Amino acid sequence: MKLSNFFIKTRNDASSVNTCYSHSLMLRAGMINQSASGIYSWLPVGLKVMKKIEKIVRNCHDQGNCIEMLIPTLQPGSVWEKSNRIGSYGKELLKIQDRHEATLVYGPTAEECVTDLFHKYSMSYKDMPCILYNIQWKFRDEIRPKHGVIRGREFLMSDAYSFDETEDMAIRSYERMFGIFVNIFTKIGLPYIAVKADSGEIGGDHSHEFHLFVPDGDNKVFMKKKYQYLMEKCSEFSLKDVNEGGFVSDEKCSGEAMNSEEYISSNSIEVGHNFYFGDKYTSSMDFYVQNKEGKRIHAMMGSYGVGVSRLVAAIIDASHDDKGPLWPVSVAPFNVVILSISNSSKSVNYCNEIYGKIVDMGLDVGYDDRDISLGQKINDAYLIGYSYTAIFGEREIDSNQVKIITRIAGQKSSEEVVEIEGFMNICRGLR
Amino acid sequence: MKLSNFFIKTRNDASSVNTCYSHSLMLRAGMINQSASGIYSWLPVGLKVMKKIEKIVRNCHDQGNCIEMLIPTLQPGSVWEKSNRIGSYGKELLKIQDRHEATLVYGPTAEECVTDLFHKYSMSYKDMPCILYNIQWKFRDEIRPKHGVIRGREFLMSDAYSFDETEDMAIRSYERMFGIFVNIFTKIGLPYIAVKADSGEIGGDHSHEFHLFVPDGDNKVFMKKKYQYLMEKCSEFSLKDVNEGGFVSDEKCSGEAMNSEEYISSNSIEVGHNFYFGDKYTSSMDFYVQNKEGKRIHAMMGSYGVGVSRLVAAIIDASHDDKGPLWPVSVAPFNVVILSISNSSKSVNYCNEIYGKIVDMGLDVGYDDRDISLGQKINDAYLIGYSYTAIFGEREIDSNQVKIITRIAGQKSSEEVVEIEGFMNICRGLR
Repeated sequence: MKLSNFFIKTRNDASSVNTCYSHSLMLRAGMINQSASGIYSWLPVGLKVMKKIEKIVRNCHDQGNCIEMLIPTLQPGSVWEKSNRIGSYGKELLKIQDRHEATLVYGPTAEECVTDLFHKYSMSYKDMPCILYNIQWKFRDEIRPKHGVIRGREFLMSDAYSFDETEDMAIRSYERMFGIFVNIFTKIGLPYIAVKADSGEIGGDHSHEFHLFVPDGDNKVFMKKKYQYLMEKCSEFSLKDVNEGGFVSDEKCSGEAMNSEEYISSNSIEVGHNFYFGDKYTSSMDFYVQNKEGKRIHAMMGSYGVGVSRLVAAIIDASHDDKGPLWPVSVAPFNVVILSISNSSKSVNYCNEIYGKIVDMGLDVGYDDRDISLGQKINDAYLIGYSYTAIFGEREIDSNQVKIITRIAGQKSSEEVVEIEGFMNICRGLR
Repeated sequence: MKLSNFFIKTRNDASSVNTCYSHSLMLRAGMINQSASGIYSWLPVGLKVMKKIEKIVRNCHDQGNCIEMLIPTLQPGSVWEKSNRIGSYGKELLKIQDRHEATLVYGPTAEECVTDLFHKYSMSYKDMPCILYNIQWKFRDEIRPKHGVIRGREFLMSDAYSFDETEDMAIRSYERMFGIFVNIFTKIGLPYIAVKADSGEIGGDHSHEFHLFVPDGDNKVFMKKKYQYLMEKCSEFSLKDVNEGGFVSDEKCSGEAMNSEEYISSNSIEVGHNFYFGDKYTSSMDFYVQNKEGKRIHAMMGSYGVGVSRLVAAIIDASHDDKGPLWPVSVAPFNVVILSISNSSKSVNYCNEIYGKIVDMGLDVGYDDRDISLGQKINDAYLIGYSYTAIFGEREIDSNQVKIITRIAGQKSSEEVVEIEGFMNICRGLR
């Protein structure tokens, strides 16, 4: 993409709002614009990152045989009455009266609607196991929205719902979803941890939160010391590790953990939550399916949420230096951006040629041909966070070299001059 | 995709609602489920079609150098006060009070928010021409929602907004968007027509609606007799044809047109609307940019909408027979579905092999391995509308043949037995 055809709107005025790093950065980098308290427009640069995250989330669900559908943003109040949550959810549930005085609810989650829909179409054990998912805007009327899209009111969430005949089968679906979440966060490519979480009235071990490590994050996670390496590098682990008790949450054992020498803690941001809740909704909403023996039973359910819009900000908070974000390559706004030092036709033609070659590789590449100074372009490269910024001047071209700025999660930011062929090999490696 | 892993939920009970063909078909084919009046959940089959349409719309905008961003569904009441539309829009505008008694509006369109956003980031003629677009859920609180997603309350719309320094430049952006719309509807692949529409208080020739021809559609379009061929086949035409007066709308010259022998009419469904409105919003909202001469001026704007969710239904209404929809290949829920007549391992293995080969071609292919009768599977093939259904039995396999059912827009539905190699060539042609 030629950046003169894009909408790059970085700002120098640091926000005076006392907020977290990602919120201030996203405003300065022109990724989001506040529309109302806790409600944001997504500018092209921010949307580009969010769509890459959404694609990873969708692909991992699809590969795990989850089935995508879509629940409307406005849900009928009647299903929330059926589950008794219309009162118990509190003021965070945004209730709306339409022109006929019917009550609608802007869904903060979709257990009711998905349960209702599943039972309209599925009558027996033959329809299970079934995992439906839905990537849709949600709304939570937070009393004090804060930290930009970390705790906004309107947010994009992926929420999956599993339906099973028995508790044993439901636990297998839970484990399947755990594997899908491990895939999602491994593909995003930042260190993360799954922690046991409070499973409330249901009890049992089947509630896990997924967190990114963020030094000034609002959450705190506890883990055995042997897992400290997780805080430094992204790593693979399985549900088995967690049952071993490898990861524990603050809620579940704050007392023991905080006083134990076995445990260390880290601040963090929650970006996913898996939850087994059995027949909580199928029973309160009075839904039955037929089991193998012909008996009417309540399906056993779980729900599995990923904060898609929140992840954009959480990733920034988890991975940046004082010059800007250090994105994992998987979600960077651009993998490669080409800059020309001068406006000479020799240099511009050369840049156009290199740009064309990288486009042909199928990479997400930009050519910053905007009519602004080189200094401003380099400033934007840091603020927005291109993985590689390649700067070509006549001298470099003559000696078959190029200066590259590398900004990638898990690596120290660097500026170096390399052979052009070496740079092209880096690009090939990104495919 | 193995259809046993999918969520195909066709129903035999015809809806008793007195409605249009598409609404009844989409309920029977398990594409949508009514959640509240005029509000629908999208089941996996319906969502699959809608996402293909969305992808065409997005790609055509991107190729035309429009820039995608995202406006939140809930907009601040304050911007609607600034444009004076909060009162004038009427009861179709859904107003909401949040927990702090602030007024939010569920956007039925986004002129206010996009104008506000553009001016926050763009100060001069150097930032123009600029076309921003946004594919987002909208809400219109219709007094009597009808015809399913044709006139629903919550709907998915793509809306683009152009910003220019002068009226001349704005007309060039308008023409560019006209070309993009021609691309979109040509790629979808059904006959369509662009008609001059009422441009209201602004006047001038720069408002066009795009319609699909639908025998029992709610709209009516008039055109010169020489364009009758459009009603029969999809065709390329340009804005130039329209200024020649080739296409005229009922609103603009119903009197003349209806009485003239030169004109014929057709029922239709509106699926797109382009509209030039100059400084209507930039002036009422008091927004300025600097022009080339350093003077403060109001940017000249246009807006350009495509009804993405409505298109799913409009396409069904425009192209079906009494057995089900005849989708254009571009948006069909599956391009190819494989069926095995028997459960013999010979037949099943053969089907798996063919299925694998077509997956490798990169096609959207299904293998209907569900544990239901062949009759039910064939019934679903018609009701959902796979482009090609390939039915393999041992006899056919022995003679290197396959029975294929072809269901494609613009072609007569057919069932025929062909050589397997011929069928594979058809598949290759779909790539």
